[in-house]
Amino acid sequence: MALWSGRFSNNPDETVREFTESISFDKRLYKYDIMGSKAHVAMLAHEGIIPKTTSELIADELSHIEKQIDAGNFKYDINLEDIHMHIEQALIDAVGEEGARLHTGRSRNDQVALDVRLYLRDAVKSIIDGLNDLQKAFVETANKYKNAILPGFTHLQHAQPVLFAHHLLAYVEMFERDKQRFSESLKRINVLPLGAGALAGSTLPLNREKVAELLDFPAISQNSMDTVAARDYICEFLSHAAIFAMHISRISEDIILWASQEFSFIELDDAYCTGSSLMPQKKNPDIAEIARGKSGRIFGNLTALLVMSKGLPLTYNRDLQEDKEPLFDTVETLEKILSVFPGMVATMKLNVDNMLQAASDPALMATDLAEQLVKDGMPFRTAHHRVGALVKWCKENDKQLDELSLEDMKISIPEATENCLSLFSPQESVAKRLSTGATGPEQVSKQLQRWEAFLLDN
Amino acid sequence: MALWSGRFSNNPDETVREFTESISFDKRLYKYDIMGSKAHVAMLAHEGIIPKTTSELIADELSHIEKQIDAGNFKYDINLEDIHMHIEQALIDAVGEEGARLHTGRSRNDQVALDVRLYLRDAVKSIIDGLNDLQKAFVETANKYKNAILPGFTHLQHAQPVLFAHHLLAYVEMFERDKQRFSESLKRINVLPLGAGALAGSTLPLNREKVAELLDFPAISQNSMDTVAARDYICEFLSHAAIFAMHISRISEDIILWASQEFSFIELDDAYCTGSSLMPQKKNPDIAEIARGKSGRIFGNLTALLVMSKGLPLTYNRDLQEDKEPLFDTVETLEKILSVFPGMVATMKLNVDNMLQAASDPALMATDLAEQLVKDGMPFRTAHHRVGALVKWCKENDKQLDELSLEDMKISIPEATENCLSLFSPQESVAKRLSTGATGPEQVSKQLQRWEAFLLDN
Amino acid sequence: MALWSGRFSNNPDETVREFTESISFDKRLYKYDIMGSKAHVAMLAHEGIIPKTTSELIADELSHIEKQIDAGNFKYDINLEDIHMHIEQALIDAVGEEGARLHTGRSRNDQVALDVRLYLRDAVKSIIDGLNDLQKAFVETANKYKNAILPGFTHLQHAQPVLFAHHLLAYVEMFERDKQRFSESLKRINVLPLGAGALAGSTLPLNREKVAELLDFPAISQNSMDTVAARDYICEFLSHAAIFAMHISRISEDIILWASQEFSFIELDDAYCTGSSLMPQKKNPDIAEIARGKSGRIFGNLTALLVMSKGLPLTYNRDLQEDKEPLFDTVETLEKILSVFPGMVATMKLNVDNMLQAASDPALMATDLAEQLVKDGMPFRTAHHRVGALVKWCKENDKQLDELSLEDMKISIPEATENCLSLFSPQESVAKRLSTGATGPEQVSKQLQRWEAFLLDN
Amino acid sequence: MALWSGRFSNNPDETVREFTESISFDKRLYKYDIMGSKAHVAMLAHEGIIPKTTSELIADELSHIEKQIDAGNFKYDINLEDIHMHIEQALIDAVGEEGARLHTGRSRNDQVALDVRLYLRDAVKSIIDGLNDLQKAFVETANKYKNAILPGFTHLQHAQPVLFAHHLLAYVEMFERDKQRFSESLKRINVLPLGAGALAGSTLPLNREKVAELLDFPAISQNSMDTVAARDYICEFLSHAAIFAMHISRISEDIILWASQEFSFIELDDAYCTGSSLMPQKKNPDIAEIARGKSGRIFGNLTALLVMSKGLPLTYNRDLQEDKEPLFDTVETLEKILSVFPGMVATMKLNVDNMLQAASDPALMATDLAEQLVKDGMPFRTAHHRVGALVKWCKENDKQLDELSLEDMKISIPEATENCLSLFSPQESVAKRLSTGATGPEQVSKQLQRWEAFLLDN
Repeated sequence: MALWSGRFSNNPDETVREFTESISFDKRLYKYDIMGSKAHVAMLAHEGIIPKTTSELIADELSHIEKQIDAGNFKYDINLEDIHMHIEQALIDAVGEEGARLHTGRSRNDQVALDVRLYLRDAVKSIIDGLNDLQKAFVETANKYKNAILPGFTHLQHAQPVLFAHHLLAYVEMFERDKQRFSESLKRINVLPLGAGALAGSTLPLNREKVAELLDFPAISQNSMDTVAARDYICEFLSHAAIFAMHISRISEDIILWASQEFSFIELDDAYCTGSSLMPQKKNPDIAEIARGKSGRIFGNLTALLVMSKGLPLTYNRDLQEDKEPLFDTVETLEKILSVFPGMVATMKLNVDNMLQAASDPALMATDLAEQLVKDGMPFRTAHHRVGALVKWCKENDKQLDELSLEDMKISIPEATENCLSLFSPQESVAKRLSTGATGPEQVSKQLQRWEAFLLDN
Repeated sequence: MALWSGRFSNNPDETVREFTESISFDKRLYKYDIMGSKAHVAMLAHEGIIPKTTSELIADELSHIEKQIDAGNFKYDINLEDIHMHIEQALIDAVGEEGARLHTGRSRNDQVALDVRLYLRDAVKSIIDGLNDLQKAFVETANKYKNAILPGFTHLQHAQPVLFAHHLLAYVEMFERDKQRFSESLKRINVLPLGAGALAGSTLPLNREKVAELLDFPAISQNSMDTVAARDYICEFLSHAAIFAMHISRISEDIILWASQEFSFIELDDAYCTGSSLMPQKKNPDIAEIARGKSGRIFGNLTALLVMSKGLPLTYNRDLQEDKEPLFDTVETLEKILSVFPGMVATMKLNVDNMLQAASDPALMATDLAEQLVKDGMPFRTAHHRVGALVKWCKENDKQLDELSLEDMKISIPEATENCLSLFSPQESVAKRLSTGATGPEQVSKQLQRWEAFLLDN
Repeated sequence: MALWSGRFSNNPDETVREFTESISFDKRLYKYDIMGSKAHVAMLAHEGIIPKTTSELIADELSHIEKQIDAGNFKYDINLEDIHMHIEQALIDAVGEEGARLHTGRSRNDQVALDVRLYLRDAVKSIIDGLNDLQKAFVETANKYKNAILPGFTHLQHAQPVLFAHHLLAYVEMFERDKQRFSESLKRINVLPLGAGALAGSTLPLNREKVAELLDFPAISQNSMDTVAARDYICEFLSHAAIFAMHISRISEDIILWASQEFSFIELDDAYCTGSSLMPQKKNPDIAEIARGKSGRIFGNLTALLVMSKGLPLTYNRDLQEDKEPLFDTVETLEKILSVFPGMVATMKLNVDNMLQAASDPALMATDLAEQLVKDGMPFRTAHHRVGALVKWCKENDKQLDELSLEDMKISIPEATENCLSLFSPQESVAKRLSTGATGPEQVSKQLQRWEAFLLDN
Repeated sequence: MALWSGRFSNNPDETVREFTESISFDKRLYKYDIMGSKAHVAMLAHEGIIPKTTSELIADELSHIEKQIDAGNFKYDINLEDIHMHIEQALIDAVGEEGARLHTGRSRNDQVALDVRLYLRDAVKSIIDGLNDLQKAFVETANKYKNAILPGFTHLQHAQPVLFAHHLLAYVEMFERDKQRFSESLKRINVLPLGAGALAGSTLPLNREKVAELLDFPAISQNSMDTVAARDYICEFLSHAAIFAMHISRISEDIILWASQEFSFIELDDAYCTGSSLMPQKKNPDIAEIARGKSGRIFGNLTALLVMSKGLPLTYNRDLQEDKEPLFDTVETLEKILSVFPGMVATMKLNVDNMLQAASDPALMATDLAEQLVKDGMPFRTAHHRVGALVKWCKENDKQLDELSLEDMKISIPEATENCLSLFSPQESVAKRLSTGATGPEQVSKQLQRWEAFLLDN
């Protein structure tokens, strides 16, 4: 018999119970449900709505139930639908009639909103910490290979030499923006919903400010209908998670490429690879592959929540129950990625020579040549054309840019001077890049120092 | 120690094991894994690749393992990664060295493709059956309320009277197309992948035709790289599921509207509703709401798989492991919807009078009036304008179309005749709709009979 | 001949030109491209990289080109690929060789990033203004119908009476969070990318700080590879837009329901409705329907960008060209919604009596009765059960809660007192809801005043 | 003044006109609208509903209007909303009152459904043809490089040698399934909707069978409400398109990898590449990149339509107007991909030697060694372990498998015999793969012949 069944003649059909239950996934919320209930009864007692002794009795028994659940000794029953009903029923079973005062001035609508906000507040903080650790692993590896140069790619084609540290720091920047987004979202998560009741508030003299204080909420929701109806803070979390997953899919792609036989830029530690059931020689970058693949489920979870919310009239509709699984799955997926990625990055070994060799193709310094011509007075677009013609000439004559005599060069670039002849080492190429954010060693050192100091503080 | 660990120096990190394992979800495949393995060893023995006694020994032990799993007595271990390794290891533990012949000429890449195809083949067939039952519930309820008339809506505004049975049959049409899509997809699911090996086929003299025969596959995959790399048959299933879920979200919306106090067109059976933890008077159409909401997760699962597959080079990449959870979740969600929806539709009660009253607003017959004018020779667009003006006149003069005298009518429609005066009953309005697919009772009866005969055969 | 064609032997195939061109959509960026180019050449001159006269010559001609485009007199040519090449070519055609200095120290990679950031900065600001106007329309209409009461719905079932103003303010809260999100995103948009070059920075002595100053950017990107590779600021914009579109789909659903014959809670102004090509009596809430439907394209655009970005290695890949159409379409869709929605809301008329009548069903006060019992000392869960039983008894005996004598009530609630008999008017029900965020008139007035003051300042 | 404006007092607001218009995109349908209207009036005349002379007059003028539109001489006006109203108004303007008979027995709801089905029928047929041409380009290139061997990859790691032709044929298989899906969908597209009216059919004696015959529809819709409400045939098209786009993203990824300096497996023709605005040496595989990126918009369009349809009650809702842009964009995107991809594939040049060298690493034949041990009697799993240990030994001792003496081999594999020593050439490795679908040259030749014959017939 469900706790709400007063007005009903029939029990629900068995298939209905299975269709509507949420206990199989919302049991994750038990700690938060109990935390919220304790604050709620404390406030009820404080306002004289229930006796102080009742409040204490309930709080004690809730602690006891929490321990039971912690220990795996709590019995779940699909007929009790959700974690809220499970805990309330266990309470009433244990302490009798006085337990029936727990749900005073409260609805499952505001209760579940509270549980989810408490859960998400913790999750977001833990994800921010995890992102910080991830950045540290990147900075550490960048520092370890501070002088390594590899080709920077555009269109997966060699473009210009860059420092490996610069490449890793590009991701540190992305993760920092991810952290910013998560941090900013806390402002909207960290708002007390309890007291909104089913949708209209309560006729009882609830003190919502008190509950907020007890649960450490800096703000209180200002509209009860919005409070029980809205899920934008979950959508927002899922979209920030999606952007982060997109970033992870990109660094994963880089790692998979670098670890391929063709690139051979890095070797992943055995502890972060797996083998093949058939091919004995295989060592696969599974972590990076799975992390890349998990972008699918995270984008899918975002889609799920947006679709679920689309077109719902106010206020609570039962569709909203479907908000939890995508949320939980996304939190757990992010936590898994954050647990495994730093170790993989921190233990990978660079094949510095292979990287440097790939970056040493003089064609990668073609832009430097064009810019030298600019320094010598030629308009850039003209310089670009001249160098383009030179590259073509080299190809037709099977020569490299660094093998050319000044005469060779003058065939395509009549204006060429001695200045143009010694531009083709990757070390020099990066060294000349001095402006803010460029790949020059001086700049990159500054950035590394900035990040080290910044991440230490976080 | 993983079965593939020969070449490795370190064990995987603990976080890696948790990140890469799939046993927590792919254990669902055990029956299919065992079925496939039995056919595989039977073929190996048939071709003389392994001894017949070994094949029998393996098959017997696999049956034994299956029973253990059925009974819940099988021990899972995250270090064994997936269901394939679990079963192979349990086999070797039980029968020793000869068990090590099971994986001959096979890779996990083709093995898992086989398991998923066997699973999906069963799932699709069961979903088609479920759809058939769903259609039957709709046809049954349509038949029960054969004469009920309600307003047909466009833009959620009353448009023209229609038969309630006609409204329900609209969904029967949609579900039929859903069935067609699922049926057609079987052709692409029902193709034997085994024998593709890791990606290149095997150097052993495998007889793939034999395995296909044993597992009742009408076709064999023709390209080993395609076989291990492609997941389009899963994407296809998920997209057909998404379209079905979209249809379910629409009938759910109709039901939620009809069950509202404002419409009061139907009453849902108590067994298909739930109550409120706060408001004692509530009776909520939760099944329809949750079903509508589940479109979110199903669209999300489709997104997940498309995203996961996007941009992967050939052939197998570990990202593909992420194909299973969206698939399983979609199958299970569809099965749940199909288990609960027919009962809800079959037990709902119509408030026939409320429906009819809503359909009796004479304004709903405005089009009939325009078409009467057309029958009397007026060009349609002119008739439409005249009737529009009349409707406006009625509104300004607070009159209904069926209260007008011929003189009233002639103010807006000088060409009006007696023909125009008796068009305003919903029964007559539907009765005049005779062409194929229209809402006239004659047509609808024909359609009901067609469906009854058709669904009986399925 | 493309500007980059120096090294090429063949011209691109005609289909290639059509496949790769972006001028058909990126021409929207011309103003921003010119603004950016002017700041760039001013800096180049300031640093002595190009002559001051050249910078002035270029800036003048760019102004001239801008006027041509403004006036619709600019000729587009698919062979010039994109807006950047069009403008550079037009410049060179007009001023000759000196124009070829424009692209000095710049790549299309950082140039297009600049254009998009300038565009998006303006768009976000304009959307925030539009959201403010939208909130004002809601507050204004809420104020106009300050005393109107309607049933608050959960599960689209009558739950408890609420003020109409309270219902509208729920959306004002949502839009405020939307505004917050857009505002916070400006921090990440408002970062100068120029100077990142193709990916590595430049060997020329660029002064990025100067360009930032000229273009009013408070910050400069700190990593050149991140700068040309990342599009998270667009994904973020699209996800905030998706959440807003989800909110719009919900208020649209409310409006469509309210405007239906069944609800008859509001009448939309003729100016915000359209009619039917067939049915002369129809008046359809098209604006709300289309706005609801546009959630599809906006969610789709978010999906598009996430998918496009997924799995791309650093740095720029041509896939990224596909970022623009979803962005432009989303901006334009939001602007359209924001242009039409405030007028629709501001001009809608309430049928206050219909609303009140619907809210007057005494069953909506069942929770008030339970809470009265709580005030009189009964534990809530017990009170909820008693009232549930009473509701059932009423249904079986065809009575309303407000028709009951104390004796009637005592059949189900032995503890009932006189206190329980006069709870059933919606006005009293709302009046008793006093805590922060509840629907009581006192609370709602406070909220209205808060919003009026707040929105005035914005 | 809109054609439907009879009942309205106000004109729509200007923003409303812009918000609701569809002429800016549905003008693409003009040919189909006119084709449908001609069939409609022919039927009306045939049934005596309008005079035959009127039918002919209308048909002639419609042909005239079509020619005007073809020639770009038709004036569009946002006040006329959509293509249907434009054409009807132009007709009435031209021929007067008799033109007002065109819309007899028809609603825009069934009219637009007809136009879209006619459009989509043509589009799908043209896409199937395009897919056929795409397959031909793949088969042709496969044939040209029939003997080329490259490493087959799993996890982007070298796995086993495969024929390049085999790799290309994997995609031919995928495209064939794409074709199948598109072909099967035609059955559901190719159904006449006209005659459903607004939603209920007509009171006029329409002959839908006649219209179907004139427009070459093999079937007629059987439920008028379904006919105007359902868009699953568009969702289905978009999901088939999404799967195809996913396939294209994969071959694009392969091509981008192959064309990188690291792989250097292929060289793309200059005509299918573009250069850099900054770096003169660059030659970028833009076609493949853009094609990969376009998966984003195509998945997004699918999302858009599913979301737009979600939760809509029957029948027509104005949201459905949003079905067109995603559809048109997807059709046009597919057509562009299909126009450019065959040429790129047909003109690419293989660096056969680079491929072979990469495939010649003896470690790729490790599985062949394990299978040799199996042939010599060892259980596979044991063989797999032994070979794994050997691979590890080789790595530690810096040796290649093909350099080992029998004694070396016996350190890890005591059971090794002479059989194990000559397995390490990629040519032999592929040659031994004989079963259906394997990469052996014999098999691949058979498959090439099968495809050539099959595609010739299509």
